[in-house]
Amino acid sequence: MFERKSIQLQEAVTRLMKFANPGEMEYLSPLEATGFYLAEGLVADHPVPPFDRSPYDGFAIRSSDTARATTHNPSVLKVVGEIGAGQVFSGTVGEKEAVRIMTGAAIPDGCDAVIMIEAVREIKIDDNLHIQVRRPMKANKNISFTGEDVQQGTVVAEAGKYINPGVIALLATFGYTQVPVRKRPATGILVTGSELLDLDDPLEPGKIRNSNGYMIHSQALRAGAEPIYLGKLSDDLETNFESITTNLKKVDILITTGGVSVGDYDFMPEIFNRLGANVLFNKIGMRPGSVTTVAEKNGKLIFALSGNPSACYVGFELLARPFIRAVLGARHPFSPRTTAILGADFLKKNPFDRFVRGKLELKHGTLFATPSGLDKSGVVSSLAEADCLIVFLKGRKESKKGEQVEVILLDSKESISMEDFFADKVRGR
Amino acid sequence: MFERKSIQLQEAVTRLMKFANPGEMEYLSPLEATGFYLAEGLVADHPVPPFDRSPYDGFAIRSSDTARATTHNPSVLKVVGEIGAGQVFSGTVGEKEAVRIMTGAAIPDGCDAVIMIEAVREIKIDDNLHIQVRRPMKANKNISFTGEDVQQGTVVAEAGKYINPGVIALLATFGYTQVPVRKRPATGILVTGSELLDLDDPLEPGKIRNSNGYMIHSQALRAGAEPIYLGKLSDDLETNFESITTNLKKVDILITTGGVSVGDYDFMPEIFNRLGANVLFNKIGMRPGSVTTVAEKNGKLIFALSGNPSACYVGFELLARPFIRAVLGARHPFSPRTTAILGADFLKKNPFDRFVRGKLELKHGTLFATPSGLDKSGVVSSLAEADCLIVFLKGRKESKKGEQVEVILLDSKESISMEDFFADKVRGR
Repeated sequence: MFERKSIQLQEAVTRLMKFANPGEMEYLSPLEATGFYLAEGLVADHPVPPFDRSPYDGFAIRSSDTARATTHNPSVLKVVGEIGAGQVFSGTVGEKEAVRIMTGAAIPDGCDAVIMIEAVREIKIDDNLHIQVRRPMKANKNISFTGEDVQQGTVVAEAGKYINPGVIALLATFGYTQVPVRKRPATGILVTGSELLDLDDPLEPGKIRNSNGYMIHSQALRAGAEPIYLGKLSDDLETNFESITTNLKKVDILITTGGVSVGDYDFMPEIFNRLGANVLFNKIGMRPGSVTTVAEKNGKLIFALSGNPSACYVGFELLARPFIRAVLGARHPFSPRTTAILGADFLKKNPFDRFVRGKLELKHGTLFATPSGLDKSGVVSSLAEADCLIVFLKGRKESKKGEQVEVILLDSKESISMEDFFADKVRGR
Repeated sequence: MFERKSIQLQEAVTRLMKFANPGEMEYLSPLEATGFYLAEGLVADHPVPPFDRSPYDGFAIRSSDTARATTHNPSVLKVVGEIGAGQVFSGTVGEKEAVRIMTGAAIPDGCDAVIMIEAVREIKIDDNLHIQVRRPMKANKNISFTGEDVQQGTVVAEAGKYINPGVIALLATFGYTQVPVRKRPATGILVTGSELLDLDDPLEPGKIRNSNGYMIHSQALRAGAEPIYLGKLSDDLETNFESITTNLKKVDILITTGGVSVGDYDFMPEIFNRLGANVLFNKIGMRPGSVTTVAEKNGKLIFALSGNPSACYVGFELLARPFIRAVLGARHPFSPRTTAILGADFLKKNPFDRFVRGKLELKHGTLFATPSGLDKSGVVSSLAEADCLIVFLKGRKESKKGEQVEVILLDSKESISMEDFFADKVRGR
C-alpha cells in the first residue's frame, strides 16, 4: 500500500528536521533550569566588575600623595578605615589618607590606586595606624575598572546553550530570577506487538516482556523530553488506529515501536494511510532500523520505530533525539561524534551503513569503542554498558581490533550541528 | 580556635568517605529509575533465550526425516503450520511434517532442527505446501537453546551500576516492576556572606549577587542528589549557628559556602566548635579551595565550602560529589579522569596541586582541555563551558599548549574507584 523507497539517513533526518520547531517558551527559576537550553541569550545586566574594585589585599590611596616618595623619604599616609566584604567606605578619602581594602572591594571615593599589602610598612603614629609608601604609585594602578571584563548588555551565553552548573552561576550573577527555556515536549510512547508481556506477567513460550517501551522512555528522558508511557497494544488494526488517533492529540511527539515491517501483522502503514498522515519516509539505507518510518499529521511527528530492540534503540538515537533537542531549543541538536579505536574485531560485512551499540573507554587520553554483544554470552550484560553508536559505513569490510572507527556519543551534554554530524565519515550519503 | 593543619586531598577524601553509607533503599518503577544506581544486582529471572527458539526464518523439522536426503532424492515434508510473533504451535509435529517458523519463535514440540528458508524448495502437492530438503540435517542444528546466552539467576548487572536506558531495557526484560535503588540524599545548601545580594536585588557597590547557592544546587542535581536551597545568611554568628543547627536536622547532607577562611567574619570554625562537631579537616594542600572544611555531627557531614566561586565549584566536585555518589550506592563514586592535551598555555606556577575548570573538546579521537577564564575577558563566558577540572600537580612549572595534562571529567555518567582516582597523576600526595 505504501511504496518502500529506501533513502539515506541524511535525507531522512533532513525531512523530519523541517518539522522541528522550538517548543513554547516558559520561564523557570535557576533552581529548575539545569538540563534545559537557553531560549534567549544570557545577557549581562551589569558590567563585570560591577564597580571599580581592588584585585588585591592592600591599601587604597591617592596617587598624588606618593609623587615624591622614595625609600629614604617615604610618603606617610594615615589609615582612616577598612573595607570588608560587602561594605563600602563612607565619605571621601582625603589628602595623605589611605584605606585598608580587601580583594574585590570597591575603591573608595577619592582614591585612584591600590598598593599591595606587601609593598608598604605599617607604623603607628600617636596610636593611629599609618603606612609608609616608598615609591610613587601611578594613577589607576591596581584597579579593576567597571566593565573591563564584560560590558553591560553583552551576551555571555548564546541562545540554545545547554544549561549546566556554570551557566546557572552566570544566570544568578546576572540576576535571572526567571530563565527563558523551551518546554520539554510531551513525548508519548506506545508499544505494539502480540508477543509482548507486561513486566509482571509470567513468561509464556513464544512471548517476551515489553522492554522497548521502558527503554525508549529512558532514552527520551536522557534526550530531555517529558516521556509519557502510553502502554502496549496487541497487533490489532482497529485498536491500534483508535489508540494512535486519540493519543496523538494529547502529546507533542508520538513514538511507537513495532508494526513497521512488511509482515502480516505490521499495521503501521495502514494506520498512517487511514490517518491521512504524511509519511516522510518508510525505509532507510541503514542497519539496524531500516524500516523505521516517520509520518507527520497536523505538524506533529509520529516516529514509528522497529520492534527489534537494537533497531528501536538506534532509530530513537539517530532520528528522535536530534528532533527532541531541536524542540528544546538546542542550538546544535545532534549527538557529538568523534574517532575512536575499535576495541574488538567486528567481522560483519556492511552492505548498508551500520550503527552498532558500543561501550566507550578512555585510556590515557585515547578513546576506545567496543561493540556491545559481540559474542553470544555478552549480549545481555553488555547492553547495560552501551554509551555510543559505532559507525561502520556501507562497503566497509571486516574491521579488526585497533582500527579506527567513527563513534556517536550518547551520554554527552554537548551536541553538534547537522552539518558537522554528516560531515566526513558519518555522512550516510 | 581550630588548628589549621594542611592535609593532602587524598587524606581529606579518605576521612570523609568513612561516613559515606549507602542511603535508605527504595523501590522505583523502571519509568522512574533512570539516573539512580542499582542497589542490588540485576538478576535474570529467566534464562535467555527463555525457550528453545529459531535464530532464522525457516522451517522447524524433525532431523530424522532428513537422514537419507540427497539432491536427487530430497526428503519431502508437509508444511502443517506457521508460527508468528508471540504464537506457539499447538500440538506436536509428526513424521514428515514441518512448520514455517519466524526468527525468535519457539521450536514446536517434535522438532529438533531448523532449516533456513534459502535452503529449501517450496512445492505444492495436492494444493498443500511442502518443502524439499536436499541434505541430512543434524539434530539440534539451528536452535538457540534455552539459557545458552544467560542462565536463570545470573547477575547481568552488578549492584552499584548506573541505570541508563540499556539497564532499563534489561530491568524490563527480567520483569522488574520495582527497581531497588538508594534514595537521593536530601542535600541542604546554605550560603553565607554579607556581600551577597538576592537575584532580584538591585546592585550596590561592594556587593555581588549570590551565584554560589544556585551553582551548588545545579552541581548537586548533576551529582544525583536531591538539593534543597535553604537561602542565604549575613555574616552573623548567632543567626548562622541557629540556621545550621536547625537545618542540619532536616537534611542528610549540609553544604555551606563562605565563612571558612581566617577573616574576622569567618564564623564556620566557631560554629563547628559550638555544635560540638567533629572537624575532619579544615585545610587542604590544593588551589583553589584550600580552606575547604568538612565536619561531622551525629554521622551527618557538613561540607563548608569556600565563598570564592571557583573554590566553591572545585570543592564540591572533589569532595561532595564522590560522597553523594557513594550515598546513592554507586559502585565507583569518583569522577573519571584521563589524559588530555592542553589547549592553551597555563603559565601559573603550582606551589600546590591545582584544579582548574576547563573545557574538553574531542578532535579526531584526541581529547583537548582548555582552562576556563585564562584571559580576563574570557572569565565569565568560559564558565558556561566548563566540563572538566584540569590537574596541575604541585611542583609543575609553567605548562605550554600541547603538553599532556590529567583531567577529571564532570559530565560523565561513568565513575571510577577511589584507588583509580588517586593512582598515578592525580594522587594529591
